[in-house]
Amino acid sequence: MSKKPIITMLTDFGENDSYVGCMKGVILSIDSNIKIVDISHNIPSYNMASAAYMLTTYYELFPKGTVHMVVVDPGVGGSREAIAVELNDYYFVLPDNGIATLVINRFAGRYTARRIENPEVMSSNVSSTFHGRDIFAPAAAKLATGFDFNEIGPEHAGTRVIKTVIPQARRGKVEGSVVHIDKFGNYITNINNANLSEINKGALLVSIGGYTIMGLSKTYSEKEPGELIAYVGSTGNVEIGVVKGSAVDVIGLPAGSWVTVRKRGVD
Amino acid sequence: MSKKPIITMLTDFGENDSYVGCMKGVILSIDSNIKIVDISHNIPSYNMASAAYMLTTYYELFPKGTVHMVVVDPGVGGSREAIAVELNDYYFVLPDNGIATLVINRFAGRYTARRIENPEVMSSNVSSTFHGRDIFAPAAAKLATGFDFNEIGPEHAGTRVIKTVIPQARRGKVEGSVVHIDKFGNYITNINNANLSEINKGALLVSIGGYTIMGLSKTYSEKEPGELIAYVGSTGNVEIGVVKGSAVDVIGLPAGSWVTVRKRGVD
Amino acid sequence: MSKKPIITMLTDFGENDSYVGCMKGVILSIDSNIKIVDISHNIPSYNMASAAYMLTTYYELFPKGTVHMVVVDPGVGGSREAIAVELNDYYFVLPDNGIATLVINRFAGRYTARRIENPEVMSSNVSSTFHGRDIFAPAAAKLATGFDFNEIGPEHAGTRVIKTVIPQARRGKVEGSVVHIDKFGNYITNINNANLSEINKGALLVSIGGYTIMGLSKTYSEKEPGELIAYVGSTGNVEIGVVKGSAVDVIGLPAGSWVTVRKRGVD
Repeated sequence: MSKKPIITMLTDFGENDSYVGCMKGVILSIDSNIKIVDISHNIPSYNMASAAYMLTTYYELFPKGTVHMVVVDPGVGGSREAIAVELNDYYFVLPDNGIATLVINRFAGRYTARRIENPEVMSSNVSSTFHGRDIFAPAAAKLATGFDFNEIGPEHAGTRVIKTVIPQARRGKVEGSVVHIDKFGNYITNINNANLSEINKGALLVSIGGYTIMGLSKTYSEKEPGELIAYVGSTGNVEIGVVKGSAVDVIGLPAGSWVTVRKRGVD
Repeated sequence: MSKKPIITMLTDFGENDSYVGCMKGVILSIDSNIKIVDISHNIPSYNMASAAYMLTTYYELFPKGTVHMVVVDPGVGGSREAIAVELNDYYFVLPDNGIATLVINRFAGRYTARRIENPEVMSSNVSSTFHGRDIFAPAAAKLATGFDFNEIGPEHAGTRVIKTVIPQARRGKVEGSVVHIDKFGNYITNINNANLSEINKGALLVSIGGYTIMGLSKTYSEKEPGELIAYVGSTGNVEIGVVKGSAVDVIGLPAGSWVTVRKRGVD
Repeated sequence: MSKKPIITMLTDFGENDSYVGCMKGVILSIDSNIKIVDISHNIPSYNMASAAYMLTTYYELFPKGTVHMVVVDPGVGGSREAIAVELNDYYFVLPDNGIATLVINRFAGRYTARRIENPEVMSSNVSSTFHGRDIFAPAAAKLATGFDFNEIGPEHAGTRVIKTVIPQARRGKVEGSVVHIDKFGNYITNINNANLSEINKGALLVSIGGYTIMGLSKTYSEKEPGELIAYVGSTGNVEIGVVKGSAVDVIGLPAGSWVTVRKRGVD
């Protein structure tokens, strides 16, 4: 059988309204063969940092050619641009508000962004409050079914980044933040393997709030139930958990909190 | 590629049980090529007014031929009929308890309703408590894959309407109600553009509880943060919101509350 | 049109993280024609009894050949095996921790379990914390698209069962437990029609906590609003509800609580 066009959806629309259903209707009216994959619609309202992180965890697991649509869009109807990004044979369709930060940061200089301006890839009536339905959904459907990326609109320079979600490494130390708290109460940080290699792994200290954890563990079984533990999680990012417990219950800090990984002896 | 048969699902079954999964199994056993689209399973339990409104927001965005299944069914096992409705090349499969009110009100005299009574379109054993699995799912699957609508069962006159969800216009005034509160705390009313045109738009006052809002705004930027605002939302219905805030937090009234739009000077 | 490969998913991953989305990416990268059906991702964390029950309600409603994947996996990275089970032309892909108890208990001696050990059916890098993505998803995708079940890995004897989720019948009495509380507040027990036939139906008493209900009703209309009622639900299991109310609100006991069905006069 032939390959299917695929669109993934990540939004903060929740699951009680029909906003997501409306977007699916628009997509399937363009081509009913498109496979739509819900990632999550429960990004905390307007939390671009959470969406930026989440996007890094799944996009490369999908087949090349997949269109990843992300709609977390507090600036709808305002001056932010609607853009499409091509990167490593994947497409991203999203508002230019920093959601793409962590993805494009990794592929600096090897991606192209275009503004979605061609009327052929949007609805004939564009509302001022629901660009998910009127711009992002039809543009994603067009891209998924072979519309030429270069015809989407003019090239867009200066794609916005959210500086605070990019970890900063210097002198044996990486400063990052909690970008997501998962269902099991684990803190997931934006500090990944690449950042750790910059400070030469070794005896590391992981700090959050008043807590400092010694070393990165390989498995939960290295510590006792109830103890804090730091480890590189399944997405390649440093996570902080509690053995058979919940880090957020113990530490109590919200997403966005600062996390530092440093070599022993570095301030 | 050829067009796919599509069934959408709107229910109050929630997402913790396997009720929805059971219905999907029945559909795919009839034809595994059917595309099933979840709209929402979080309609408040037994809230027919909410379902009636929600249905108006998405059904026309799907391709012609789509079967829209709605199961909010407090009367299951009782005397209400199970019906299928054909309207403007869309199909609706639902209990006859008023869920279709707003859709059929708009197409008065141009739809056909039939009772689902042909044993070929239902399961061989029909339980008394789960018609979603035993009647609505198989009937929807049959319709989606070409079963003749006229063979579903006898014509059904007098499809039930919920009078309170139809707004009433008279002498420069439309009386309606809040049919849904969305994730962002906006009140969505059943008063739409067609109702407004009946009272000749102009200087309008929108009232809910003890609050009166002057005029319909075009964008949120017309008012200050924290101010109440009324506007025609993305679905064509009058909505009441708060700039950078939540209307339900400010006003505190539940869904079902009365809303009035009137010309200035009309009581 | 030809038959589609189908994979169903039942997990405790929730809907706020991208864990489920990652698994879907892996599946569609193996074959983008696979149809993925979400049953629920809201199994209470690590609740194997709930998953074991839920699985019995839907698996047979899907077409033969469907792969049912269940990931509720507190022992990930530990010593539990990852297995695939073939039973009555359905496949199950899950950790061997008792989730399959109620399904295999019904088909004793007529199923085959194999350990998932063939590197061809798993990811090249298997993490220690996310076997859903690295083992279960690719194995399910391979089975769904025709990979020979016998090549999955060696036969696995002694598939684990959770004894407490199998009801015990003796001398006119069946002792079971609440395996699920549904959205409407009904207690769903693991006591089914087969168990009832062992004690010869007749005048039965259903007991939970300090409450005893006389007889199994056929419909809710046999009792008054507010009264407790016991009946055989749509899945063939004994359920306890309250007419126009919620059993969990009245009785207050959690899932896992003991339930007894006995003939009148039996202790």
